[in-house]
Amino acid sequence: MGTAPTHSRGVRPPKALLLLPFLLTFVLVGSRGESHAMDNVATERMAEESHRQDSANLLIFIMLLTLTILTIWLFKHRRFRFLHETGLAMIYGLLVGVILRFGVHVPQSTSDLILSCAVNASPATLLVNVSGRFYEYTLKGEVSRSKSHQVQDDEMLRKVTFDPEVFFNILLPPIIFHAGYSLKRRHFFRNIGSILAYAFVGTVISCFVIGLIMYGFVSFMKVVGQLGGDFFFTDCLFFGAIVSATDPVTVLAIFNELKVDVDLYALLFGESVLNDAVAIVLSSSIVAYQPAGDNSHSFEAMALLKSFGIFLGVFSGSLALGVATGVMTALVTKFTKLRDFPLLETALFFLMSWSTFLLAEACGFTGVVAVLFCGITQAHYTYNNLSPDSQDRTKQLFELLNFLAENFIFSYMGLTLFSFQSHVFNPLFIIGAFMAVFLGRAANIYPLSFLLNLGRKNKIGSKFQHVMMFAGLRGAMTFALSIRDTATYARQMMFSTTLLIVFFTVWICGGGTMPMLSFMSIPVGVDSDQENSSAVLDGSQRRNTKHESAWPFRIWYTFDHNYLKPLLTHSGPPLTATLPSCCGPLARCLTSPQAYENEGRLHDDDSDFVLNDANVSCMYADVTVSTDASGSHTINRKRSSTASTGCGPTDEGLDQDLALAEHEVAIRGTRLVLPMDDPVELPTTVTLPPPPSPPHSDPRRHRL
Amino acid sequence: MGTAPTHSRGVRPPKALLLLPFLLTFVLVGSRGESHAMDNVATERMAEESHRQDSANLLIFIMLLTLTILTIWLFKHRRFRFLHETGLAMIYGLLVGVILRFGVHVPQSTSDLILSCAVNASPATLLVNVSGRFYEYTLKGEVSRSKSHQVQDDEMLRKVTFDPEVFFNILLPPIIFHAGYSLKRRHFFRNIGSILAYAFVGTVISCFVIGLIMYGFVSFMKVVGQLGGDFFFTDCLFFGAIVSATDPVTVLAIFNELKVDVDLYALLFGESVLNDAVAIVLSSSIVAYQPAGDNSHSFEAMALLKSFGIFLGVFSGSLALGVATGVMTALVTKFTKLRDFPLLETALFFLMSWSTFLLAEACGFTGVVAVLFCGITQAHYTYNNLSPDSQDRTKQLFELLNFLAENFIFSYMGLTLFSFQSHVFNPLFIIGAFMAVFLGRAANIYPLSFLLNLGRKNKIGSKFQHVMMFAGLRGAMTFALSIRDTATYARQMMFSTTLLIVFFTVWICGGGTMPMLSFMSIPVGVDSDQENSSAVLDGSQRRNTKHESAWPFRIWYTFDHNYLKPLLTHSGPPLTATLPSCCGPLARCLTSPQAYENEGRLHDDDSDFVLNDANVSCMYADVTVSTDASGSHTINRKRSSTASTGCGPTDEGLDQDLALAEHEVAIRGTRLVLPMDDPVELPTTVTLPPPPSPPHSDPRRHRL
Repeated sequence: MGTAPTHSRGVRPPKALLLLPFLLTFVLVGSRGESHAMDNVATERMAEESHRQDSANLLIFIMLLTLTILTIWLFKHRRFRFLHETGLAMIYGLLVGVILRFGVHVPQSTSDLILSCAVNASPATLLVNVSGRFYEYTLKGEVSRSKSHQVQDDEMLRKVTFDPEVFFNILLPPIIFHAGYSLKRRHFFRNIGSILAYAFVGTVISCFVIGLIMYGFVSFMKVVGQLGGDFFFTDCLFFGAIVSATDPVTVLAIFNELKVDVDLYALLFGESVLNDAVAIVLSSSIVAYQPAGDNSHSFEAMALLKSFGIFLGVFSGSLALGVATGVMTALVTKFTKLRDFPLLETALFFLMSWSTFLLAEACGFTGVVAVLFCGITQAHYTYNNLSPDSQDRTKQLFELLNFLAENFIFSYMGLTLFSFQSHVFNPLFIIGAFMAVFLGRAANIYPLSFLLNLGRKNKIGSKFQHVMMFAGLRGAMTFALSIRDTATYARQMMFSTTLLIVFFTVWICGGGTMPMLSFMSIPVGVDSDQENSSAVLDGSQRRNTKHESAWPFRIWYTFDHNYLKPLLTHSGPPLTATLPSCCGPLARCLTSPQAYENEGRLHDDDSDFVLNDANVSCMYADVTVSTDASGSHTINRKRSSTASTGCGPTDEGLDQDLALAEHEVAIRGTRLVLPMDDPVELPTTVTLPPPPSPPHSDPRRHRL
Repeated sequence: MGTAPTHSRGVRPPKALLLLPFLLTFVLVGSRGESHAMDNVATERMAEESHRQDSANLLIFIMLLTLTILTIWLFKHRRFRFLHETGLAMIYGLLVGVILRFGVHVPQSTSDLILSCAVNASPATLLVNVSGRFYEYTLKGEVSRSKSHQVQDDEMLRKVTFDPEVFFNILLPPIIFHAGYSLKRRHFFRNIGSILAYAFVGTVISCFVIGLIMYGFVSFMKVVGQLGGDFFFTDCLFFGAIVSATDPVTVLAIFNELKVDVDLYALLFGESVLNDAVAIVLSSSIVAYQPAGDNSHSFEAMALLKSFGIFLGVFSGSLALGVATGVMTALVTKFTKLRDFPLLETALFFLMSWSTFLLAEACGFTGVVAVLFCGITQAHYTYNNLSPDSQDRTKQLFELLNFLAENFIFSYMGLTLFSFQSHVFNPLFIIGAFMAVFLGRAANIYPLSFLLNLGRKNKIGSKFQHVMMFAGLRGAMTFALSIRDTATYARQMMFSTTLLIVFFTVWICGGGTMPMLSFMSIPVGVDSDQENSSAVLDGSQRRNTKHESAWPFRIWYTFDHNYLKPLLTHSGPPLTATLPSCCGPLARCLTSPQAYENEGRLHDDDSDFVLNDANVSCMYADVTVSTDASGSHTINRKRSSTASTGCGPTDEGLDQDLALAEHEVAIRGTRLVLPMDDPVELPTTVTLPPPPSPPHSDPRRHRL
């Protein structure tokens, strides 16, 4: 078969235009590297030119971000709250998109060639013999022939469109990690049951509701003749999966700023963080859902089960991996004195967190999900071991990465509306999608809230339900999932529609949150960390909070407090006290000297958990000594005696309460449960610690 | 011409294996993106597999870095100083290289094909028609036919070898920026003349000396028959350019830790930072040096001149760009109240600094050089405008990036010794190179020191000269420059030799610095910031320090102090005082309110410049009011009255001294020069500020 070098115009972007610093530079790498070994001066010059062009294009994005930052500042400075920074970034992106689309027209370079050859598969690497010289080519992907002559005729627009996998591999991980790392764990854990229900059950409900509604719409459109291509039931489900993930960014920034009720905040934040993970795994399971009869796209039980199995496997695998690397980091930071060198510590933390992503991807799990749970683990354990300096550094580092990635995604979203060249806007489909999204969200929130309220002591009020309904913004994850694959007609239509949904929810729902809150007369200005001290809490109310958690979580609390925290961090009771005596030597070896020191003043990061009237207890100094060594703890597989010397219901106290709920001896104040039979080393003096303070403000904490 | 799909083994790495977080993820992107639009399941699976393989490979590097960090900690903990962390990183890299080379053998995937076609040039993009479907391929580079069947047969080794441009576009910029940003400007500026001499004149001398010696050697080798390929005079010069750049990392870390004499430190650090910039521009000028008769590689005056012109143009262009973006950042941070939001401020700082790189690359200058001067400018001006929080954040961010990039480069260096598959070790050439490097360094240091000592009051002693000679390590820049192009025989030989030079200097010279210092009995333990307070300095000695700077720098000091600092930062005297009265309104508009406030307590970041007996002056409170409005300043192009109310020879005081050196009125203590004729607003009360303190510890500074 002969080669026919014909000129083709418009293929997929030859070079991903990458945005973040690192990314950017890589483009340069790519373009320069290509010209590397050729001593053809013309080619060299062309590559140089393309390199410059890439740099210039990237500058556009940097300028865009800089502008966004300045405007955000202006808004914050003037206290404009009707538009969040992400909405702002989108507007700027939109403007630049319009300019690029209608203002600039760079003609397509005509350097593309078409070769025909009799190869069966497309190899990853091609060696092309050009008049005696060999050039290496690497595979970029398939090009749909029909499209290549149609729309994508603008070099500039092609340049600013970049590989969607960038979102998954570069932009989302820091955002998701930051979400996990900055999670307010006290409120999160207090509402964990409800959060899990909304995130898992709710997202699946929403996915199926949206999928079914859309299938109805699509069928109707097919009848009416409005559909320009295939649209299978799996596509509908896929659409349901990608638009079910709510965004943890926009509303929550507003909620955080306004200091809305902490439980509402925890529910929304927890749900949106976890349902990102659920949506990503759900959508990939749906893609993997392949009924026996290939391409039939019909419903089949076995395939569904298999798909569900994939979902569970991938999710739990990613979770386990994320937790595992988090735990490893905790162990390393605990058993080395790395804390003397904050730079080393921060670097280690960063590398370990990043390796989670790699490890998950290498094992075939989902890196983004692993990174979320790694973030939570790091915050729960490793954070306690870090030096105060590193604590600040890591927080600030991930805050910055998160900020840059987030604003980039949102401005790119704006840009895409005009720069993406295969939009399919179908009014009927769009109307259907908006309805479906609305109904799906309703089917998630209202029935689940009803069911949850049956079990919850602290009911989720109807006002809260309305706010949760309203605040279900779609954001970065939805966008990333929908841009991942825009090869088919169905996917293109989905992408265009998703874009509109994101715009609508971010601008209208995001901007309307403030009026909504005041309309609902939901209290604003509650200090999330101090709320308990300002509110008048009597004993029974406090116990309510504890009882709210279901028993599995109470077991978990106790286990975490007695074994994991002491093992992985410098805080908690010494392992020598919690492990049975047969493990004595091991326990002594694993317990850090600080654990004994800290015993008296246990207020680690989990002062999150500290109910603030602990202070009051301390003032009263009502030290109640209770002897409880009867081994009657709910989870005691072995006869363990817990020794906890702490000031009142600190983290430790609270955990204790959860385990001893049935036979609580001391209602409030400091408790000292003395072991009667185990010959473990215990400090015999009860030292009254200073009142608990937030982790950051206590420089003595965990100092060696 | 027919296509002949034959299997080929061993081409250049199809995919750059990238290391830093961002990089890594990009690889994933690359590999996944490729499989994107194909619904060929087999190809999809292959891409998936390759993606996993890439992640796993990257994990190796992460683990390598993690290990390095832990060992560094151990070394620091145990106070081992004979091996610096970079040397350590190299050793680990070496070990992994050995394992990969001899332990693991992944057979080459046989998916590469060779197509022959009658194309004249090699296009950047290829569309290949594979049985009716179109696949896009992008150009990677030329492959030397002979090699492709020889050495590169190991998939694993290919995978860990990545595009050398990564060094220039991702790894070097943060390192160089950090060097500029963390420059100790007091000592740097005090020795600026000598530093510039060593960095510019010295590096050029060294380059030519090495080039000539190598040319002699190579000619000899040609006669003896030891040379396996072409080696032109320009190659020799290029070699001279790349091995002339000394490394600012290794020795200086040791010097900093040991607190060696500050002037010696400043000389070495300043030289090595600047000569990186010189070497990079010099080497690219030599590559651009193309005598009229193409490929003649002989000496020609015009081409040399042109090359020199390129050198000057690129260098000054990059410098100007770097300074320009730095100044812009300073202006933005000064005139907005961005400091209220440290996150925004840090993000802006980061983006602006990064845009320097892009801008320079887009304009055809050298990004790395621009980034260096941007760093210096940011430190000199912008840093003063940042909120204390952002000051910490930016420092820590770039410290981390620098640390990661540096350790990555050094461990990659170690790896390369075994993983690079085209090494050419020529014993004769290596011996020659070591001699040449030694002699080139000697030809830089000794004659220049002799000449400089003629002009310097504070002589550079012969011991210092020996240390500078000895401490001329070659590091990251040399490596990056030499790996950039390894296409020809000459370049391969250079690369292999350079690698050995780097190993030798880092391990032997780096490790030998301590013994060297004690052998030379050079005092250790001098606190660079406190040295003046510990040393007994009388007035005349202090004035020596000032006079050391040549007049151009004195002019610069005054200009900077009177106009630039007030314009770009919140510190310095108000512009209303320094600008002529006709510019009054403009000056008032440009002067920040803080300038008036700060007038009384001027100790900004340039407390670097603060000679510490200022404290003593403050104690004595000997306020000397001197009336000096005679317009007799050395540089006064216009009649300017300077008003400076400060405690003793602060930055301002010192600058003042430099300008008023001839007619200094007050020898020590606080000076208040009152303007006699200009109707500018001046605070009329002389407030005695608290003693100057380091910038970080003063939270009041620049607070709004």
